[in-house]
Amino acid sequence: MTSLLDDLRVALGDSAVLTDPGETAGYSSDWRRLYSGRPLAVIRPRDTAGVAAAVKLCAEAGVSIIPQGGNTSMVGGAVPSDDGSEIVLSLERMRALREIDTVDLTMTVEAGVTLAAAQAMAVEAGMLLPLSISSEGSAQIGGVLATNAGGNNTLRFGNARDLVLGLEVVLADGQIWQGLRHLHKDNTGYALRQIFVGSEGTLGIITAAVLRLQPGVTARATAFCALPSVEQALALLARLRARDAGALHAFEYMSGGSVDLVLAEIEGTACPVDPAPHFILVDCATSGPQAAAASLADMLEGVLGEALEAGELTDAALAQNDAQRLAFWKIREEHAEAQKRAGASIKNDISVPLAALPDLMQAATAACQALVPGIRIAPFGHLGDGNIHFNLVQPEGADGAGFLAQSDALMDAVADVVQRLSGSFSAEHGVGRLKTGMMKSWRGGVELGLMQRIKAALDPASLLNPRVIFPAEQAED
Amino acid sequence: MTSLLDDLRVALGDSAVLTDPGETAGYSSDWRRLYSGRPLAVIRPRDTAGVAAAVKLCAEAGVSIIPQGGNTSMVGGAVPSDDGSEIVLSLERMRALREIDTVDLTMTVEAGVTLAAAQAMAVEAGMLLPLSISSEGSAQIGGVLATNAGGNNTLRFGNARDLVLGLEVVLADGQIWQGLRHLHKDNTGYALRQIFVGSEGTLGIITAAVLRLQPGVTARATAFCALPSVEQALALLARLRARDAGALHAFEYMSGGSVDLVLAEIEGTACPVDPAPHFILVDCATSGPQAAAASLADMLEGVLGEALEAGELTDAALAQNDAQRLAFWKIREEHAEAQKRAGASIKNDISVPLAALPDLMQAATAACQALVPGIRIAPFGHLGDGNIHFNLVQPEGADGAGFLAQSDALMDAVADVVQRLSGSFSAEHGVGRLKTGMMKSWRGGVELGLMQRIKAALDPASLLNPRVIFPAEQAED
Repeated sequence: MTSLLDDLRVALGDSAVLTDPGETAGYSSDWRRLYSGRPLAVIRPRDTAGVAAAVKLCAEAGVSIIPQGGNTSMVGGAVPSDDGSEIVLSLERMRALREIDTVDLTMTVEAGVTLAAAQAMAVEAGMLLPLSISSEGSAQIGGVLATNAGGNNTLRFGNARDLVLGLEVVLADGQIWQGLRHLHKDNTGYALRQIFVGSEGTLGIITAAVLRLQPGVTARATAFCALPSVEQALALLARLRARDAGALHAFEYMSGGSVDLVLAEIEGTACPVDPAPHFILVDCATSGPQAAAASLADMLEGVLGEALEAGELTDAALAQNDAQRLAFWKIREEHAEAQKRAGASIKNDISVPLAALPDLMQAATAACQALVPGIRIAPFGHLGDGNIHFNLVQPEGADGAGFLAQSDALMDAVADVVQRLSGSFSAEHGVGRLKTGMMKSWRGGVELGLMQRIKAALDPASLLNPRVIFPAEQAED
Repeated sequence: MTSLLDDLRVALGDSAVLTDPGETAGYSSDWRRLYSGRPLAVIRPRDTAGVAAAVKLCAEAGVSIIPQGGNTSMVGGAVPSDDGSEIVLSLERMRALREIDTVDLTMTVEAGVTLAAAQAMAVEAGMLLPLSISSEGSAQIGGVLATNAGGNNTLRFGNARDLVLGLEVVLADGQIWQGLRHLHKDNTGYALRQIFVGSEGTLGIITAAVLRLQPGVTARATAFCALPSVEQALALLARLRARDAGALHAFEYMSGGSVDLVLAEIEGTACPVDPAPHFILVDCATSGPQAAAASLADMLEGVLGEALEAGELTDAALAQNDAQRLAFWKIREEHAEAQKRAGASIKNDISVPLAALPDLMQAATAACQALVPGIRIAPFGHLGDGNIHFNLVQPEGADGAGFLAQSDALMDAVADVVQRLSGSFSAEHGVGRLKTGMMKSWRGGVELGLMQRIKAALDPASLLNPRVIFPAEQAED
C-alpha cells in the first residue's frame, strides 16, 4: 500500500494525504460514535480532477474508498473499517460556489460546501435553498445528496432528491460523469442523477450539484399549537393545506412528553401554550411584499381560529416577532440535546402513511411501555411527511446501560408496529451500517436483488463505501 | 412462435391475445404515424399476474415486448418492428383505482387508467392530481410515468416523476417488484422507482403506481397577457413567483405568430387582448374557502397592475368567469391542431435554462428564417420550465413536401442553438425511436455508457422496448 500512498501524494500533493492517527481520528468514527475505524489514509482532494485521479489509483490498487462529507451520519454511513485497509475521501476542500442563477433560480455548488453555507449563498443572492436539517452547520452538500436528506421543509419542497437538477459524479473507475445540467425538464434517457441521490456513496462520488432554489422569503408566520390528539393534528394539517399549501413550509410534531424533557433540560425555554399531550409547530412563509406578509399572518390566524372553534386545538400562540419565532423553534430544535441530557436514549427514524399516525403512536407507545415500565416516550418530527423520530428515553433515575441493553427489543417492538402499518424503518437517515440487518426482511427478495444488480453494474469490484446498505452476507456474494 | 402464442392464450385467455391484422392495426403505429410495424401479437392482460406470466413466457421464448399505454407518444415510443417478431403488451385493461387516501393525499392506480380518468377520480374524492398534458384523454398512467410526462403544471408540482411515491413493476424476466409504498419519506436503499420512471419501458413494465395528490382546487384566477418581449415574460414570471409561487399553477407562452395561426384556423377563437409579439397565459389556483378565492383574484390583479406599470405588459385580460377562462385556455390548447391545419409542420420539444430563453428565441428564429424564407415560426409552451415547443410551419401556400424535405436541416439549426445554450433536445417527450440518433452527440461517452450498464443489468437480453433511447449501433453491442 505504500506505493498507493506515494501515488496519491504525487497526484494530490502531500498535504492532501493524511496518515497520522492524530490527523485521521476526526474522520474515523461517525457522529454518534456508534462505529469507529482506522483508515489507511484520509485524502482531501481540492477539485474534481483530484477526486477522479485518486479514485482511479485506488481502483487500480483494489483499495476501497469511504466518501465522507460533514460526517454527520446518524447511521454510520461514512466510517472506514478498523483494519487500516480503506481510504477515507473527504470532500471538505471542494467548497466553491460555481454559479448562481437568479433568473433560473438555481445554484451550482461543490460537494464540500456545508448546507448552512449553501443556504447563506442563496440568501445573499435573494433566494431560498429550501432544505433545512439539524446538522446543516456541518453536513455537506455531497453527503446531503448522497443520503437524500429530508428535514423540516420536505412537506413543501420535497427531499434533497427533489431539489437536484444536475450532478457531477466521479464513478468507481475514476471516470467523471459531467451531468451538471440546469434544466427543469429534460427527458433524454435515464434519470441518472436520481440513481446517485440516496445511494449513500455506494455508486459514485458526488463532487458538485445544480440545485433548485426558490424566491427568497420576506416574511414568516409561525404558531405553536396545543392539541388533544394526533387525529386532530391531521385535521389541522388538512385545514392548513386546503387554505394555502404553498405557504405551509413546516408542520412539526412534538409529543407532550418530549416537550417536557426540553423544558426540564434546556435553560431559557418556556412553553408558549397550555400543557397538552401533543404540540404542533406551524411555519408559513411568503416571498411577497409587505402586503403579502400581512395577509399571511391573517391567513394563519384565521385558520387557527377555525381550528380552535372546531376543537382541533386547545390553545395556540402566534409569534409576534422574530424573537418569539426563534423561541418557538428552539423548543423543537433542542429535542435531541434534551434527550441526550435526560440519559440513555434510543432513536427510531420511521415513517408511515399519514392516516396510520394515530395507530403508530398508540401501538408503539404501548409496546415500549410493556417492555420497560417508566420508559419516557418522546416522539417528535415531521408529521406532515408521516416521519416521526420515535425516540425512547430511559426511565428517570434508571441505569442507562441497563436500558440500552433493551435496545434491540425496543427497536424491534417499534419496527413491528411500523411494518404492520406499511411504513419505513429509515425515513430520512438512510441505512448506513446501522440498519443493513433490516434490509433483508424489509426490502428483501426482488427489491434487494434489483439494488444488487445496479450496484454490480456501477461498482463491480464493490470499492465504494462497502458495508453500507447491503446486508453483509449479501455483500459478500 | 406458434407455441408462444398458444402459451399466451392459455395464460391470458383467448380474447387477450390479438393476432388478426384488423385488430392489431390500432396498436401498430404511433400517434403521429411516424412509424408503423407489424406485431406477432397484441396481448392485453387484465392484471399484474397476467403481465408477469406473459413477460416470463416471452423472455423464455426470447421474444421482445413493446409495452404500450395510450399510444400517444410523440417520438415513436411504443411501436413494434415491421418483421412480425415482437409482442405489443397493452396495459389498457388494467384500469382499477386500487386505493385513494384523502388523509395522505395519495391514489393507487393501475397502469391502464387514462390520465383524465385518474384526474377525475381524484376530483371525485375532493383532491387534485396535478399533472395535465394535451393527450390526457388517451394517455395512460403507465405511459405517463414511463415517459416522465410534463405538461402545464410542472412549474408548480413537477413532472410525473415528482408525483410518484411507489410503483409496481414487472421486470424483464417476469418477476414482480412490489414497490407500491405510500411513504413521503423512505430512505431504505436505492430509489428504484426513479429508475423506472422515464425509462420508456426499457427496464420494466409499470403495472401500478402510488401518486401524490394535492388538495382539490376551489377557485382559479386566469389571465391572458400581451408582452413586448421574452425578457419581459421572465420579469413577469419572477414577479408572480415572488408574490405567490404556491398559487402559480401554470405560466404558458405563446408567440404572436402561433396565436395568429390559432385565430385563423380555429373557429370560435378571439384574442382577448391587443395584438402583441408574445403572449402569456397565467393560471393561479387555490384550495381554500371563498375568502381565499377573492384574495387570489386580488393578488393576480394586483401583480398584473404592477407589471403593466413596469412596462412588462402591454395589455392583460382577467377571466371573469369559467367560460372566459376556458376560452383563454382554448387558444393555448388548439396550438397543435391549428398548426396541423396550416400545413406541414416540424416539432421541436426543447428546453434551456430560463435566462437563455430570449437568446434561444432570437437565434433559432433567425437560423430557420435563413434556411426557409417565409417560414412561420410558431413557438409556444411551458416557459416557466424553460420548455418551448419550437414548432415550425411551412410558408403560406408553399409545398408541404418540399418544406418537410428541409426538416433535418431545420431541426439541426434549432438543435445547434439549443446545444450552445446547454439545453435539451427532448424536454418532455422522451427519446423514443425518433431521437435515438441524437443520444451519442448529446449524451454520449460516460453518460450513455452508464445508461447501457443499467440497461444490461436490468434487461440483459434487451427484450423490453428495443430500439428506443439507445442509438442502433450501441444497442447492437
